[in-house]
Formats: sequence, structure tokens, C-alpha cells
Amino acid sequence: MSDFKQEALRYHAEPRPGKLSIEISTPAETQRDLSLAYSPGVAEPVRAIAENPELAYTYTMKGNLVGVISNGTAILGLGDLGPLASKPVMEGKALLFKRFANIDSIDIEVNTTDVDDFVKTVENIADTFGGINLEDIKAPECFEIERRLIESCNIPVFHDDQHGTAIVTVAGMLNALEIKGKAIEDARMVCLGAGAAAISCSRLLKSAGMKPENILMLDRSGVIHSGRTDLNEYKKEFAVDTDRRTLADALDGADIFLGLSGPDLLSPELLAKMAPQPIVFACSNPDPEIKPEVAKAARPDVIMATGRSDYPNQVNNVLGFPFIFRGALDVRASAINEEMKLAAAHAIRDLAKMPVPEEILAAYGVDKMDFGPEYIIPKPIDARLLNAVAGAVARAAVDTGVARVALPEQYKV
Amino acid sequence: MSDFKQEALRYHAEPRPGKLSIEISTPAETQRDLSLAYSPGVAEPVRAIAENPELAYTYTMKGNLVGVISNGTAILGLGDLGPLASKPVMEGKALLFKRFANIDSIDIEVNTTDVDDFVKTVENIADTFGGINLEDIKAPECFEIERRLIESCNIPVFHDDQHGTAIVTVAGMLNALEIKGKAIEDARMVCLGAGAAAISCSRLLKSAGMKPENILMLDRSGVIHSGRTDLNEYKKEFAVDTDRRTLADALDGADIFLGLSGPDLLSPELLAKMAPQPIVFACSNPDPEIKPEVAKAARPDVIMATGRSDYPNQVNNVLGFPFIFRGALDVRASAINEEMKLAAAHAIRDLAKMPVPEEILAAYGVDKMDFGPEYIIPKPIDARLLNAVAGAVARAAVDTGVARVALPEQYKV
Repeated sequence: MSDFKQEALRYHAEPRPGKLSIEISTPAETQRDLSLAYSPGVAEPVRAIAENPELAYTYTMKGNLVGVISNGTAILGLGDLGPLASKPVMEGKALLFKRFANIDSIDIEVNTTDVDDFVKTVENIADTFGGINLEDIKAPECFEIERRLIESCNIPVFHDDQHGTAIVTVAGMLNALEIKGKAIEDARMVCLGAGAAAISCSRLLKSAGMKPENILMLDRSGVIHSGRTDLNEYKKEFAVDTDRRTLADALDGADIFLGLSGPDLLSPELLAKMAPQPIVFACSNPDPEIKPEVAKAARPDVIMATGRSDYPNQVNNVLGFPFIFRGALDVRASAINEEMKLAAAHAIRDLAKMPVPEEILAAYGVDKMDFGPEYIIPKPIDARLLNAVAGAVARAAVDTGVARVALPEQYKV
Repeated sequence: MSDFKQEALRYHAEPRPGKLSIEISTPAETQRDLSLAYSPGVAEPVRAIAENPELAYTYTMKGNLVGVISNGTAILGLGDLGPLASKPVMEGKALLFKRFANIDSIDIEVNTTDVDDFVKTVENIADTFGGINLEDIKAPECFEIERRLIESCNIPVFHDDQHGTAIVTVAGMLNALEIKGKAIEDARMVCLGAGAAAISCSRLLKSAGMKPENILMLDRSGVIHSGRTDLNEYKKEFAVDTDRRTLADALDGADIFLGLSGPDLLSPELLAKMAPQPIVFACSNPDPEIKPEVAKAARPDVIMATGRSDYPNQVNNVLGFPFIFRGALDVRASAINEEMKLAAAHAIRDLAKMPVPEEILAAYGVDKMDFGPEYIIPKPIDARLLNAVAGAVARAAVDTGVARVALPEQYKV
């Protein structure tokens, strides 16, 4: 086992098992303290909430608590290993919520692969939380699960594998198109992969202005076209009338390659078929569809992003989900709608065009980091993300009428 | 609104809503830290747990995590106010787990009153936890819910309203009987109330040696006797062949009154009918079945306990549940069985006979606190409870074969 793998195991086992602890945030030493925290004092907030359910946000941790919920059917790139094995990932996600946005978050592993059963279980426990982050649930079940929970819950329900990836991808893509000097309405994209992230990215790109007929999506059987009879309802949404069939056909003259598939599926020969200054988002992790050094050797004009932290332009969900939930929770949004997602993408896009603070340059050991092909996406350690993204999301929630309280002062522009 | 009530509301609202926070227990500052906590490092514990589920106890917080789960159908003495209104109580319970036994605990509110639906929901999320504390679920549903979850889950499931109360009651009762000089096998008890706590207390007293025919239980219709046709299966367990019908009939010559009913239901006249040196556990809260000063005026020889902290001998669940779970978790017990409950009761009983440490005398502002009618139950702030009760429970788990790891060093005697 590699040193890194051993260190990862040790990290999870020491100083105590796991990565989270639950702490008391009120005085709890004296008999008096405890008589307020529990019987008899606790009867007062109980009565208050029974009379006005909204007061749960005043007297309990609900309003800052996000449940990270999975059934472990699509864990990272590892596949269906079940709920228990997903627990380290879900604890890790909860850790990121705290680290980046000071959101209290706890993982819940749900032991069922049945959609009805999963939905019912989450509906039954939803009162506990201020928001629900669905995670690592396989497609296509994830689509129906999310849709039904959004309908039935009055708190934000957000499947991060879909929308987190989509939001950061759209942010980077808009910047790449700006550099390339191509309007999104005219850009032609090939999306390799037709899973949850691919479908969600392509949907949000459509919301951002990309034309449906300019998106060619490919699954294992090739281009998804209107002549195919083997498509589920989600893939059908992207079926276009075309005679292109292979990845090579599809890439001929394309402006954008979006890879959400597997390692090394984009060869230099295929890349050569793309339009001038091609945009390549090779997001398969840890091994991208094409390595940046390989892509640049073949096409020095490429504008490239990957899912990896050791190359420029990392498409990292952590740029999105902590701040999206922060903004949604801060205005008690009843949902995270399309406008809020686009607002988040635009905020991330805009941040990449701002001068980079000294501490980030220092952390990366560089003298400058200017908007351009090597910097179209902000860094996860950029502390400005919190206010920029959360604020944009909160304002969009207010503007679209899903906020239940007024915009907090710090988000006013 | 009284000052205390206002203070209780303020306590829950400030400095931030609620009483708990979820914190990161590992380093999470640098890019390197995060690559261990989340992708790609987190894949290692995922793979390890997929291969050996027991490693969830090594690499996640599961083994020290207790879910406090309720549907809010019997909140304190307030009744069925629903899951959301129960949240302050459940957070309070989680706070007590942390405060007294350093157990990480999170509340889950389940929005259903249907037994099948509740059981299925908890089964589905049980992988998340190392143990489950059921709370404030109304009788008789609570009995079936607990029984079915114990059968289907391989972690401890414990309905504290039943067993926590029972364990502390039995501890105090054994000491009261010792002072009175009466063997439990010969003692005759009247139990006023036939809810979850009453049934569980009476069951554990039977396990401790009390004879079934010596227990007279009363519900709203009077003595539960074998001629009644209106009894559910739980009450039937306590139906005896007797011609006594009223509380007055039942109390004639009784050694013990156990009240788990309502305020002021035991009058001085009724108390007068009991045997010499009567034992009165008046546990209705906050207003007992008879006030200690009233009881003592009528019967100076009474040995008395209540549910209140401002009288001697408080029957307080917090003497039990944090330490019972501590012991069960520390040996990864697959259940909390009858032997473990009795071991807890005996440990609490025994602690009351030990010399009381200076800091407790100081906290209560007294010079001495000796085993006797005014001190048959230890104080909640007694720091010796942790090791004494958790150790007794852990040893009983090992002895009865439900422990999955060896007895920790600190519990060996």
C-alpha cells in the first residue's frame, strides 16, 4: 500500500475514529444550565414550536443543519459499495460544509436501493434538517429521487453530484468561451458521458444559453440521437437529429469537449479534429479523459480544465455546494431553483476575473495568477467565495420568491 | 411569562439557535488535509469498509454516535405535539449524552405515527449510528417499535422513557427496601399508571426479584385484574387475580407506591393505609403524586423519591442512559439486554452506599450525605457514575455474549 493510502487510513482512524464530533454550543455545566437545556426549561421552546413551526429556526439547530444523505450506490468512482462503505465520504462532505461555510452537517446512510423506500425515508426525517444534500446515488434513480424530494420537502434538496459539478463547470465554461471569444449561443459541445453529472451540466448549460441542437451527448453506445430506441427519459432529453455516430464524428469542428466519463478516452488524434482554441473539460477523476500535458502537446491553443488539484482550473464541487447551501439557509429558501444555481455559476465565473489576493498567490507559490487560459476557475481556498456565492444565491432566492426571510445585511449589494 | 420561561427561550435562541454544533475532529486546513479527508484519500477507508463492515468502527464516527430518534407523540408531559416540536427535547437529550458520557449524539425527528413506517425508516438509517435512543414515543406503539427494531438492528436500540426510568427506579427501590429491611421477594407494590415507564419499571422489578402477584398496577379504570376485558397485551402482562378494585383497596398494607401518573393522586389518607415505613416513589413531573412535605407530615417514616431535583432522591434518567450507552458502545454490544439493564441498576444502587466525595457535598452545600432515607440515589453530578455504570454494563455485555470486542482495560475489576 502506498504511503498516501496508509496516511489516508491513519487520518480516518486517529486521534479517534472518523472526522466529526458533535459538541455542546450552550452552557451545560451546572444544574441550572441543565434545567434550561432539558427538563423543565426545554418545554418552553417545545410549546413555542408547536404553536409556530417556523420557530424551529429560532430555538433549534435546524436552520444551520444539512443532512448529507446517500445510499452508497455510486461512491466516488468506486461504484455501488453500499451505505456503510459510503460513510467516510459522507462524513468528508459534512466536514467540507463546516470547513468552508460553517454549516453544521451530519451524514445519514440509507440502506435501500428502492426509489420509493428511499424517498419515503428521507421525507420522514426531513423535519430534522434545514437542507438536504443528496450524494453518491446512482443514475438514473438519482433524478427521480431528487425530483420527488424537491416536490415534497419544504427545505432545499440538492443532489450535489449533479448540480455542484454543473455549477462549477458552467462557471469555468463561460470564462473559457469569453477567452475564446465565442458566444455560448453559438458554441458546439460534445459531452462524453451521460450520467448524472453529464445530464445536469448539459441542462445548466442550456439554462445559460447553449442551444440544445449544439449539444451532442455520448453514452457507451455512441452519440445520443433521435433514432435510438434504447434511451431512458433523461437521455431522451438530449437526443438530437444527427447522422454523427462516433466520438470522432461528434468532435469534428466542435468548440467544447466535456468529459464526464473515464480515463484517456480523448486521444490527441481526436482532439486534433476540434475547432481552433478548443475548450476541453476533462473531468474524469483521478484520471482525466486526456492529460493536460498530452492535450497541450497536441493542441497548444487548448483551454483546459480537469477535476484534479495538481493542474490549473480544477472543477471542484467545493467551490459551489458549501456556499450555495449557506446562501439558501441564510434566507430560509424553500428550494434551490435554477435561478439560484445560475447565480452561483455567475458568481464563481466573476470571481475568476478579479485580482487574486496575495495569500492565494503565496499558497500556490506563484507571483501572479491572472484571468486567462490557466485561470478560469477560482481556487477552493479563496475566502471571497463565501460571500460572493452565498450572496448571489441568497439574492436570487429573494428575487424568485423562494426566500422565507429577508436578505441578510452582508449580502446586500 | 415567568423569568425562568423567558430564560429558557433565550437559552435556546442564543448565542445561536439550538444547543449543538458539529465540529471537525481532524486537521482540515491545507489542501493536503482535504485530500486525505475527501477525494482522493477517502477512497481508502471506503474500500476497507466495503471489504470488512466492522472497520466502519475504525474509520468513521459510527462507533461513538447515538441517534436520538422520536416522532414527538409523547413529548415530556406535553403530549403529542409532533416531530418538529420535539426537536428541542431531542437536542437536549443529545446534549446530555455528550455532557455526561462524551458520546456524539444527533437527534432525528421522524414524521410518522404509523408503526410500520416508523420502524422501516429507522431500520433504513440505522447504519449511520453505533446506537439508537428512542425517545418520547407514545405507548403502546413504543413497545412494538422498540421490539421490532431490537430484532432487526445489530446495534443497541433503547427506549429511554421505558428503561432509563426503570433502571434508576430499581436502583433506588432496592436501596429503599434494604433500609426498610424487606426482601424484594416479599414486597408488595402498587403501581399507579400503566404507560411505557410503568410497564418497564414493573418488568425490571420482576427481573430484580419482585413477585408478579405482588404487583398491583392501576390505569384510569382502576386495578388491572384478570377479570378485565379492556386490556392491551402490555397491560395484560400485569393482570392479577384479585378482588381489589380501587387505589384505596390496592394500597391497603402495601409496602411500595410507584407513581407514574399525575399530580396529587396520592392523598395523605391513602398514604395512611400503607404498611409501616412505606416506600413512595412519586415520579410524576414536575408535580408528584404527593409532595414530600405532605407525605412526611402524614407519615414521618416514609422513604421517598420523586422526579424533581429540588427534593432528595431524584429519579433522573441521566443517571442511566449516558453511561449505559457508553458501556454498550465501548464493547460494541449488539444490544442492551436485560442483564445489562440490571447491572446498571445494581451499579447505581451500590454507588449510593459509597462515601460521597467532597465536591458533591460542596455543590449541594451540605456537610454530609450518608446512605439512608434521604439518600438512596446518587446525584447526577457524581463523576463516579461514568466508570461504575458503564463498566457494569460493559462487563454484563461481555458475560452475556453480546459484546463484539474485548472489555476495555478501564472496566476490568
